[in-house]
This record gives sequence, structure tokens and C-alpha cells, in this order.
Amino acid sequence: MSKDKVILAYSGGLDTSCILKWLLEKNYEVICYMANIGQDEDFEAARQKAKKLGATDIVIDDLRKQFVEEYVWPAIRAGLIYENRYLLGTSLARPCIAVGLIACAKKHAAKYISHGATGKGNDQIRFELSAYYLCPEIRVIAPWRDAEFCAKFQGRQDLLEYASKHGIPVSVTPKAPWSMDANLMHISYESGILENPNTEPPQDLFMMTQSPVKNKLLHPMRFTIEFDSGCPKSLQFSFDKTITDPLEMFLELNRLGGQYGIGRIDIVENRYVGLKSRGVYETPAGYILHVAQQDLEVFCLDKEVFRVKHQLMLKMADYVYNGFWFSPEGNYVGECLKMAAKNVTGSVNIEIIPGSVIVLGRKSNFSTYNENLVSMDKHDDFSPQDATGFINIQAIRLKEYKRKMQN
Amino acid sequence: MSKDKVILAYSGGLDTSCILKWLLEKNYEVICYMANIGQDEDFEAARQKAKKLGATDIVIDDLRKQFVEEYVWPAIRAGLIYENRYLLGTSLARPCIAVGLIACAKKHAAKYISHGATGKGNDQIRFELSAYYLCPEIRVIAPWRDAEFCAKFQGRQDLLEYASKHGIPVSVTPKAPWSMDANLMHISYESGILENPNTEPPQDLFMMTQSPVKNKLLHPMRFTIEFDSGCPKSLQFSFDKTITDPLEMFLELNRLGGQYGIGRIDIVENRYVGLKSRGVYETPAGYILHVAQQDLEVFCLDKEVFRVKHQLMLKMADYVYNGFWFSPEGNYVGECLKMAAKNVTGSVNIEIIPGSVIVLGRKSNFSTYNENLVSMDKHDDFSPQDATGFINIQAIRLKEYKRKMQN
Amino acid sequence: MSKDKVILAYSGGLDTSCILKWLLEKNYEVICYMANIGQDEDFEAARQKAKKLGATDIVIDDLRKQFVEEYVWPAIRAGLIYENRYLLGTSLARPCIAVGLIACAKKHAAKYISHGATGKGNDQIRFELSAYYLCPEIRVIAPWRDAEFCAKFQGRQDLLEYASKHGIPVSVTPKAPWSMDANLMHISYESGILENPNTEPPQDLFMMTQSPVKNKLLHPMRFTIEFDSGCPKSLQFSFDKTITDPLEMFLELNRLGGQYGIGRIDIVENRYVGLKSRGVYETPAGYILHVAQQDLEVFCLDKEVFRVKHQLMLKMADYVYNGFWFSPEGNYVGECLKMAAKNVTGSVNIEIIPGSVIVLGRKSNFSTYNENLVSMDKHDDFSPQDATGFINIQAIRLKEYKRKMQN
Amino acid sequence: MSKDKVILAYSGGLDTSCILKWLLEKNYEVICYMANIGQDEDFEAARQKAKKLGATDIVIDDLRKQFVEEYVWPAIRAGLIYENRYLLGTSLARPCIAVGLIACAKKHAAKYISHGATGKGNDQIRFELSAYYLCPEIRVIAPWRDAEFCAKFQGRQDLLEYASKHGIPVSVTPKAPWSMDANLMHISYESGILENPNTEPPQDLFMMTQSPVKNKLLHPMRFTIEFDSGCPKSLQFSFDKTITDPLEMFLELNRLGGQYGIGRIDIVENRYVGLKSRGVYETPAGYILHVAQQDLEVFCLDKEVFRVKHQLMLKMADYVYNGFWFSPEGNYVGECLKMAAKNVTGSVNIEIIPGSVIVLGRKSNFSTYNENLVSMDKHDDFSPQDATGFINIQAIRLKEYKRKMQN
Repeated sequence: MSKDKVILAYSGGLDTSCILKWLLEKNYEVICYMANIGQDEDFEAARQKAKKLGATDIVIDDLRKQFVEEYVWPAIRAGLIYENRYLLGTSLARPCIAVGLIACAKKHAAKYISHGATGKGNDQIRFELSAYYLCPEIRVIAPWRDAEFCAKFQGRQDLLEYASKHGIPVSVTPKAPWSMDANLMHISYESGILENPNTEPPQDLFMMTQSPVKNKLLHPMRFTIEFDSGCPKSLQFSFDKTITDPLEMFLELNRLGGQYGIGRIDIVENRYVGLKSRGVYETPAGYILHVAQQDLEVFCLDKEVFRVKHQLMLKMADYVYNGFWFSPEGNYVGECLKMAAKNVTGSVNIEIIPGSVIVLGRKSNFSTYNENLVSMDKHDDFSPQDATGFINIQAIRLKEYKRKMQN
Repeated sequence: MSKDKVILAYSGGLDTSCILKWLLEKNYEVICYMANIGQDEDFEAARQKAKKLGATDIVIDDLRKQFVEEYVWPAIRAGLIYENRYLLGTSLARPCIAVGLIACAKKHAAKYISHGATGKGNDQIRFELSAYYLCPEIRVIAPWRDAEFCAKFQGRQDLLEYASKHGIPVSVTPKAPWSMDANLMHISYESGILENPNTEPPQDLFMMTQSPVKNKLLHPMRFTIEFDSGCPKSLQFSFDKTITDPLEMFLELNRLGGQYGIGRIDIVENRYVGLKSRGVYETPAGYILHVAQQDLEVFCLDKEVFRVKHQLMLKMADYVYNGFWFSPEGNYVGECLKMAAKNVTGSVNIEIIPGSVIVLGRKSNFSTYNENLVSMDKHDDFSPQDATGFINIQAIRLKEYKRKMQN
Repeated sequence: MSKDKVILAYSGGLDTSCILKWLLEKNYEVICYMANIGQDEDFEAARQKAKKLGATDIVIDDLRKQFVEEYVWPAIRAGLIYENRYLLGTSLARPCIAVGLIACAKKHAAKYISHGATGKGNDQIRFELSAYYLCPEIRVIAPWRDAEFCAKFQGRQDLLEYASKHGIPVSVTPKAPWSMDANLMHISYESGILENPNTEPPQDLFMMTQSPVKNKLLHPMRFTIEFDSGCPKSLQFSFDKTITDPLEMFLELNRLGGQYGIGRIDIVENRYVGLKSRGVYETPAGYILHVAQQDLEVFCLDKEVFRVKHQLMLKMADYVYNGFWFSPEGNYVGECLKMAAKNVTGSVNIEIIPGSVIVLGRKSNFSTYNENLVSMDKHDDFSPQDATGFINIQAIRLKEYKRKMQN
Repeated sequence: MSKDKVILAYSGGLDTSCILKWLLEKNYEVICYMANIGQDEDFEAARQKAKKLGATDIVIDDLRKQFVEEYVWPAIRAGLIYENRYLLGTSLARPCIAVGLIACAKKHAAKYISHGATGKGNDQIRFELSAYYLCPEIRVIAPWRDAEFCAKFQGRQDLLEYASKHGIPVSVTPKAPWSMDANLMHISYESGILENPNTEPPQDLFMMTQSPVKNKLLHPMRFTIEFDSGCPKSLQFSFDKTITDPLEMFLELNRLGGQYGIGRIDIVENRYVGLKSRGVYETPAGYILHVAQQDLEVFCLDKEVFRVKHQLMLKMADYVYNGFWFSPEGNYVGECLKMAAKNVTGSVNIEIIPGSVIVLGRKSNFSTYNENLVSMDKHDDFSPQDATGFINIQAIRLKEYKRKMQN
């Protein structure tokens, strides 16, 4: 009888290498799937490692373009932010990877997928809900929730011993006392010493951004970000450089934002599984784009549409965080948010200084901002006398209430 | 027959001085009311000026303590922010002043109050709705909405001529090409050259904060802010200095934040009267406290309570902006928000660098954050196997949807 | 010089006849515009009356089809209901009439429109906001807010005297001690004896529906309503009668619902101008369709989409009630609601008895309702063991909270 | 070694009798807990049955008073309704029973509780989340999710055989082809023939209410319901009968509503576990009180407070349905809703006819309803001219939008 095929989301690290070996021991045929979503990884070395360990095949999938255009751009367009601060860098990557993983599973007629996400985290949920949506028949092997696997590997030491026993090469670099997850949108750091929410993250933790204190002498840097229907369209510098390719634009903003130490946050957040956890994130390009988008959005959107859209954004941020990017509600609210952004077209002038993004001005042909109407020196179509009626009518309810309460 | 009495909200500036004279010409008896809410003002000079112009009496009311404790603190506690960015510095001051104004009117048995707020703005609404709530029988004279007054004073030149004719002293400092409004929470700048939303605010505009670029050499500064039930309770420095008086604490944070150029924003916002307007604000202490409160809030509040509270905050921010601080809904939602904050007790470690506020850590005895529970190295009460059931149940709806849609 | 032209929304009643005459006295040229939105009216008699009084022209516009298809249907599709009970019969008619009125104004190059809506009500707002949206340059003459007109006509007696003086024929039927507004969707009754909210509406007030007590012997009546993307598509009777024309279907449901005394409500509601008012409404067809739509909607919509949609419905109901059918937010939320309803396709079996609508069953090819999955006798894709994990994960947050609170 | 003690939520029916026996076989000591929440049950017979089967003890707890006063009243006060139609009769009973169950477990120092709720339903979740909140250390035995139990009892036939084998008496009445759950607030029917959502519920299904068609000759019946701070306070009949005891009042309304066939619904709803299910409910007293409360609420509450309160109600209804009556968010939102209702004091005149509840009028000393203000014949404090300003200001935004869109 032929073996059951598993597509393993493989990173080349200790955990997924042990999982690979363990799946092979369990008599599965394993195809390793590696998504390039912009993390700093030696994919070729990982391929060799997986090959050597016994993987039938290793698929390396460059998803960077899709990730930026189909996940990051809609998130920027919607102004997605979780619990007021987190820009959802990891949450957005998971459904993107799941699409690649499921496509791979379908191509190889594999019944199973597997991943190395832990059992207390959000990522297992995001991976699996995306996978179940994309392919309701798929089956998931989650070793970190498997009783037998968990019994076998109770800590890092067990993994190291297993690795040593099975010839799994282990990086000589000592492991940092925290875990990290990287993609081109952000790096997140958690666990280890960060589990104490009152412990300051050490400065050598940050890998995408440089310290704004160390780089405090940097001169301010200016550029203009143009948006079309809510999505970034171009990045313009005064010295006649303009970038329009989404991936290129994003990487350039990462480079600049990284140099200026922009987009670092240190937060406690509520996980979907009901735990509070502490995370440190750096999202240089994402943060710059978010600041610009927020500025242009309120400029272009009608006041009431802005409010409805904001409610939908809050919903969508929870959906995405919780793993429902692909879902009836994710589809629906995503479409509504896209519709809301159709007039968010224009440009924002930005200055970055160490640690900060400053908005200098904005323009748009779609805003109802009317310089003449708002001017204190002109009346245009606005009759100040009307405000008296407006206020008096608004006051009726308040007066009646107060009078009633006084009785 | 005795004259009708008017309490005029007086600033000592050109507009309200002309209004004072105009009311006297209209045969009113005028009592000038000046609220000290922390603006940089020569109250004594203003008193003399009003006296000389013919005011029956001039009341100078130091409301700084009330303003901080009864308006700013509840706003910080609630995390109030309008359209994602504006901390409501002016909006909060208006009801505070209205309380003083109405108390003065009651004391002097005046039937009228008057103010110099313009006819296109938010402040007229905030003043008047507060006043009507506090005293439903009060009558308001709003010269800038009075047809005759507006016809007489069509521009600044008319005011200057009237001033010159009536012996109203005019400041020799040339007027800045924008208008400003100041209190201890913030200064707002608008109009004039700022009416073009693409015009960068000139650096000499800012009066509360220094340029973070000019001051880029400042060393990082650290302190701890302690909160009790959502309100700031103490400000602690490592060098053994602790401030607990609310007003003092706020002024100290203004001083520090001002030096580090913190809390500047340049936004377009939606006014209650349906206009979009551009404003530049600086709110040094308010912004630092907001950052700290946001951090502690999500740490202390239950995930679902946090979401409900956030919805109430959005409501309250609109109420306050629109002038409904005093209203049935302002009272009710204010109470709900206060109740939500009862566990937001703890402290946040803050670092400020030029232009930025950085959270370094937080602690609280009221958070359900559980280091053991969230740890990747311990299981505690969390059984990873449970996550499988959790995910599978969540997936049912998605799978059914997908299957249905495929048919 | 040629006279200014006014398009008057004319009803043929006492008020608008006096307004017509008054406008003529004011030297306007007046074109009377009568919209047929299904009210029981002798349009020909009204035409003769207006002609005789001096109107330049009388336009009678049959808007019944547009009203049902473009206003009532979208409202049913969205499940619009104001303050939990009012189906918005009047609110929906106003923008429909405004479209006709403005088209008439444009055709005749009239600068003005005029109407007889009162100054404390909602309808003035709905008419005028619709008109200003449709034609920002239009000017509105609202006699019941005109100081001179109001001074002249201080009560019904003044109108009657003016009518008598100017040869305006007055109905010999004594006026009912309440006012009413009718269209094919509903009749609303308010004012007069109904102003006391504790006064029971007299039985002879109702004109669209017969008393369910008087008609209590009627046999139950059954039919099936088919919906397509949220809109009623057909009305099917067992005796082989099927109606598919929207207007015809609505009129038939009005006839049946009227006979069975269905869709009466007696409520106090909050007007946009801040007053509470008491209204009695009868909406037979609207209520039957609403019941059926509500049933099918929750059957067809995904659980989470249902919740988002419900929030949007609440927003839209307020918009429509307040006069913002035509507005940025009305357009946007209207589109979102339409999108939400795209799977609300299926049919509902209905029984009516005197006073009540009963749902007997429903079916749809678009529902994710899965008889096998939900069955207590089958397991299908649902593993009860998964529920354990689901519950345990949900309990974590509660346990932590309780433990913390106990300390 | 002493046996582990289990408190079993026992109903006396086939399922829980088999569970009792099975737990004993598993070597547990079992105490049966029966909550009297108003269901029609022979508690003494059930006691004998449990005793005979081997239960150590049988606790019969009359929770009817607590259920009405602490669960039903707050639900009525809040106007709780799930997915627009379901009054939460079962959902409210579960936390009430859990309190009794956990008190019993604490009293007997039992580590375990057990129940017969099925693995696809909502009740397991409501029981267990309530229990975990009330006693985080409690352990739950849910046989219908236990793999071994489920394997043993794959259908009703297996239960019957097991019963016969172990001397468990089985009711001779043939089981209805649906399942039901009863308490004094309602009876719910589901499963069996009701699983086809297009199957009409048979008339002999209903046990609390009589058919409004059969009883169509009943004369209308009138009474007045008085509310205090949102809770029912008295039920007054014209023939000088007044009931003030909550339980008595509720039972009397059940009796009347039952006779008039009031409060039947047939709906498809979304379960917490992501399934759609069909339920038929009858809630006579609950529905009458809901209608009266809705009427009084909008009469007494400020317009904006009403809207906020409605949002909180929607949240709370989901919490209660999903099992979070006891939870941080249930506590918090429950308190907010209580606060909102503090002015909902007054009375509502009600008429019931077969199948329907009719509101005849209402009064309150706490409403801001102002007959003079709203009257079309008086002006009072309302100046119609003010409405012009109000409308013009509201129109600004619409006009600007339209003008912009036309370009």
C-alpha cells in the first residue's frame, strides 16, 4: 500500500526538521513546502537539509509579490490595526502561505498537511482555518498538539537530542532567549525573556530596524506616497526617483524605515485562544504606509462613511488576527472595505526622522474638503445664521432631559 | 428699566473686545468672564482692558485643577481619541468653561451669555450645548452668527477700525497667518495659510513643543506612570522624584514632552457642522499619557470587555467632539467607561526620545496576563490538544460555506 | 421681469391649497406636483382645484412602480426597521417623491421647490435633504417655517378663513382629530388626540386594515413568498395563483394583510429633531414581507455576515428615517446591504390569521443549514469530542479572570 | 480509596438515567441534582428512580424564584433577543442551574459534575462555561462527548437496551418525534421531524400555548404592566386584581398567554458551534413582557442612550446565548444595561387577542416625551425657523459630495 502523503510547512529550523523526521518515522511520505514571504532565509541550504533528511521533494515558492499585492495592500487600504496597535504582519502571512500549501497539496494529491506551529498560539488557527476553507477535505497533522509527539518532545533539549540522534544538523549560533517570526512586512518577537511583560526588550533583538537613538544624527528624509483607491501606487522622492512596483516600493520603505528605526512596538495583546501574550514587533514600511493611509482616508472619505468603514475595519482586524481572512465574513467585509476605499486617491507628503513619521500635507481630487467653505474669511455656501438653528434643534433634547431630571 | 445682563466669555483679544463694546452699545450690561484653563495669558492686563472698555465686572476663574481632574483625567481614562488621531484638547475645555460661565450667570442672575466663537466652527456648539444643558433657560448671544454684527464686521480690517474708533488697544505684534486656541492640554492651529491642506505648517508655529529635529541630541528620558482605575496617579523618576498632584503631573509632562517635541499632529478632521477642516495640534502631556494608558488598558482589561469599551470610547469621542459632554448619552457612556476602567491599575515604564514615546514595560496586579499559562515551556492549565477541538469547531462553518459555494 | 417658478408638492388638501394661493400672492409662478405613491386620492379633482386656484400647470406622476421596486424592495431586502418597530413607510416615500419633484423642477427650469411639511417633523428634512442632494442649487420654500406665513396662519381656523376668502374649496367631511399620511406601503396617524401617549387609538382610525377582533372568524390563509437576492420575487397560492409583478404582489399582500388586520403598531419614536412623538402605523404588506425576509435571512446568511449586516441595517434605518436615503453613507451602506443579501434566495411558507403572521417553514439552495450535520442521530463531519476542546479553550479566559478576581 | 464524587444534572429521563448507571459502573459515587426551574416534572418519581438506580443522594432544588428574579427579569429589563427573534429561554436557565449545581458540588466536596447535554448543542457550553467560571477547579464529565460512551450508545435503541438490562424504568408514552426542553420561561422543540426546516411543526407539539386558531373566539383581555427601572413590578387587571410577586406574575402571564396562543416562534438560528439549527419555541409570558418593555423603553430612554443600549443588548444576547452569562463581559455589559434601564419606570396598557399582543398606551414620569413640545398646535420651546438652520447645516455635506461627484 502506498504511503499517505503530507505537505509539511518547512522552515529549515530545528522544530520542523524534527517534525519532518518524525513524520517519516510515522511512515508518511513528506514533501517539504517553503514559502518565501521575504524572511531572511537560506532556502538552498534548507532544501539540502530536507533532502538529506528524507523529504520526497522540496517546493520553494516565492510568494513575495502575492503577499504584498493581495494581502499587505488590502490591509493597508483598510487601515487594519488590531487592538489599536498591531499591524497584523504575521496574521496576513498565514493565509498567503496556506494558499501555497494547499495548492501544493492538490498538485501532489496529498491528503495531509502539517506545520510546526505551537498549541497555544494564533498561527496554528490561521493556518488551519485557511486550509479548511480552501480545501474542506484536507487533514491536518499538528505535532505540537499531538499527545505522543508532545510526550516525546517536552522541551528544546529533547529536540536537540533527537536531532543529534537522527543526524539533523543544528545551527551553531546559540538560540536567542526569545522566538521570532519574520516576513517582509515585519518581524515579531515573543516568548523567553519577553514573557515578563515588564522586561525591556534588549536593543540587539531588533533585526529590521536600527535604533533611533543610535541613529539620531540622521537628517530628515522626505517623500510622497501616492494612493489609488486606498492602495499605495507610487513612492516619489524629490531627487527624481519614483517607484511604482508594489514589492519594490515596500522593500524600499522597509530599508528607509529600518534605517530610521520606525515602526517598533512593544505590546500585550489578546490571543484568539483567550490568553494575553506579549509581543515586540517591527514593521517599518507597514507603519509608514499606515500613517499615510490614515491621513488620506479621513481627508477623502465622507464623515459618515468613515465611521461605518472604521467599524468594518475593527471587525476585519479581528477576523484576520483570528484566522478568518478566508471566511464568509472575511470575504464580505473585505469587499465592503474595498468599496469604501474607492475614493481614497491622492498623495501624502511624508517626512521621517529617527523614530517618527511626520505628515506634512496631503492632496486629492476626491476629497470634499473645500477651502472656500471652511475659510473664516469667506462665506460661500455656508450661512453662519444656520448654525443657530442647528444648535437650537440639537439643544431641545438636552434641555428636556435636564428639565425632567430636575423634577 | 434695568439693563439685561450678559456674561461674556472674554479672552482679551481683538474679537471679544469688539464684542464687549458692541454689547455695551446694544445696551447690555456686560460682565466679562475669563477662564484660566492653562493658556499663556496676561489675565491682569485683560482685566484692565475690559474694565476700561466698560465691563461692569471681570471674573477670572482658575479652572486648571478642575480641567485636569474632571475633564482631562476622564478622557485619558477612557482613551478618548477622535477619528483615530485627535486627543480632543479643545473639545474638553469647552464644557469646563461653560460650567464656570453658567455658574457666573446664575450668581449674577444674568439671562444671557455671549461668546466670540465663529459660526462655522465646533466651539460655538460645544459652548452652547453645554450651557443649555446646564441651564435650559439661558439665552445665548453669538455675535458671529448675528446678521447685523456680521454685516458690520466683514473682516479683520473692520474689527481694527472699530477698535481704533472705540479706544480698544490692539496688540502691536502682527497677527500670525493662522488662528490658535490654547489651554494646558494643547494648542490647536488652524485657518489662514493652514487652510491649504498641502501646505506644511511652518516650524515657528509650534509654541508648546520644540522641534525634535533641532533637539535631536537630547538623551532619552525615562519615567514610570502609575495609574489607578484608569487615571494617572503618579509620575515617578529614577532620581527619586515622584509627582502625585494631577495638575503638577500634567504640567511636568507638558514640560518634558514639549522639550522632546512630542504630541504634534497635522490632520484633516470632520467638523460637526459637516465641513472638513485642517488642524495642527500639539498635546505633549496628553499624548504621553494616552500612549501609557493604551498600553496598560489592553494589559488589564479582559479581551471582550476591551472590545465593548472601545466601541463606547468611539461613541464618547464623537459626543465630546460634537459638544455633548453634558448630555444623557455623555453621562451614560461616561459612567460605563468609568466602570470599564476600574481594573486599569498598574504602572507603565516610558522612555521619551525626540519626537517619540516608547513603552518599555508594564505591570499590574489586576491583569489576567499569566506568564505560566502563555509560556511555551510550560503547560499549566492549557492543554494544547484542546486547540484541536477549538479549531475543528471553528472550521465547521467555513467548510460548510465553502462546500455550499462550490455547488 | 419674469416671475420665479416654484414647484409645489401639492396634495389637494387645505394646507397645500392655502400655500399655493399664498405663493401666488407672493408673486411666484407655481407648478403643482402630485406624486401618486399609492395614496387613496382623487387626483383629477385635485388637478381641477389647483388649476382653478391659479397653478400654471399640474403634474401628476405615477411613482407607484418606482416606489415599490426602488425603495420598498431594497428596504425589505435590508430588513430595515427603525427603533425595533417602525418599517419606515413614510421615510421611504420622501426621497422617491423628491426625485420626481426635482426632475419636474429641472424640466421647468424652476429655481424653487415648496412643500407643506410642518416645522417640527421629519418629513421636511427628508424632502429637503433629498432635494439638496439631487440638486445642490435648488432653493426650498418651507412656508411652515416662514415667520410671516406662520404669523398669518396660527391655527386651522386661520387656514379655513383664508380658504373661504380666496375661494379655496374645503372638504365637507369634518377633519379627524389626528393627522394622517398615506402611501401604498402604509398609513401613519399622529397628532391631535394621539398626542397623549396613553390614549388608545380609536378603532375607526384604521383605514388600511380591518380589526382582527371583528374579523376573528376568518380562516387561516396560506401562501409562499419567494425571494431572490433578498427581494420578493413571487407570491404563490396553493390554488395555482402566482403573482410576480412587484407592484401587484405588494397590492395583493396589502389586500390580504388588510383583511386580516396585520401590521398595526402604536409606538413612541425619536424624531431626528430630538423630539419624542407618538405614531400609529399600519403596514400590512410591508409587515408580512418583513417577517418572511427575517426568516429567510438568518437561514441563508452566514452567522458572522448576519451580524455585520445587522449593524449596517441599524445604520441604514437611521439614515433613511433621518432623511439620508440619498447621501454618501446611504449610497455606501445601501450597496453593502445589497451585497450581503445576494444569497438570500429561497422561499418561506406563510400563514396569516387575524392579527398575526406565522412562518411555517422555509427552503433555500443557498443556506449552509445541513440537516445531517445538525442531526442528533448522525455525526457526519462533526466530532462531539471537538466540543470539549472548544469549551476548554473558551473557559481559559473565564477561569483566569475568576482566579484573579478572587485574589 | 474512596470513590470520586460526581454531581449529575439529572432529569429523570432515559438519557440521564443511563448516564447515572454508567457513572456508577465507572466507579463514581453519584449525587443527582434536579433543578426545579418550572418544568412540568414529577420530581418525587424522579427521586425514587434515581435512588433505586444507586444514587447516593438526590437534591431537588426549587430555583423558580431565583430564575425569575435574577435571570428572567434582567433579560426582560435589557430587552434581550437573539438574532431578532429568540428570547433566550433555555440560555437563561443554564447559568441558573449551574449555580445550583456548583453550590451542590461545593457542599458535597465533589470534584466532578456531569450532564446529559449533547455534543453538538449549545447547552453543554452554557453549563460548562458557567461551571468553570463559578469554580475554575471543577471537572466536567460530558458522556455525550466521551468516545467510549458514544461508542456504546450510538442511538436511542442502545439506551433502551441498556435501560432494560439495568432495570431503568422507561416511560410507556412513545417518544415524540422531536426533543424538547422546558422551563417556566419557555419550551423549546427541536430535532427529529423538525430537522427539515420546511416541515411545519404539528399542532400537538405545543404544550404551553393553545392554538390561536382553535381559540379564536376568546374575547380580548386587557391588563396593565408596571415597570420599575426596567423590571416588571406589577400586573394590574381592571377587575381589581393586582399581582406583584415576580414568580406569581410570570406564571399568571404564562397562563393567559398560553390560553391566547401567544409567543410561538419557529426559527432557524445560528448555534455557537457554527451550525444552523431549527427550533420551535413558545414563550407566552416572556413575549408579553418583552413587547411591553420595548414599548416603555423607547418612551423613557433618551434617543442616543437608546442606541448605545441597543448595541449593548445585542452583545449581551450573544453572550447569554453562547454561555457567557457569567464572564467578565457578561458582568460588565450586564451592569451597563442595568444602568441604562434606571429610568424605564412607568406602565404599559396591553391587550391580548388570540395570537397577538397589542399595546394600547403607556405612561411614565421619567420620559422626556413632551406633549406641548411635539404638538402641531403649540410652539412651546420649539421654533420651526430653527429647523431651517438644522437642515441647511445637514445639507452642506451632501451638497459638497454631490458637487464633487459630478466633476
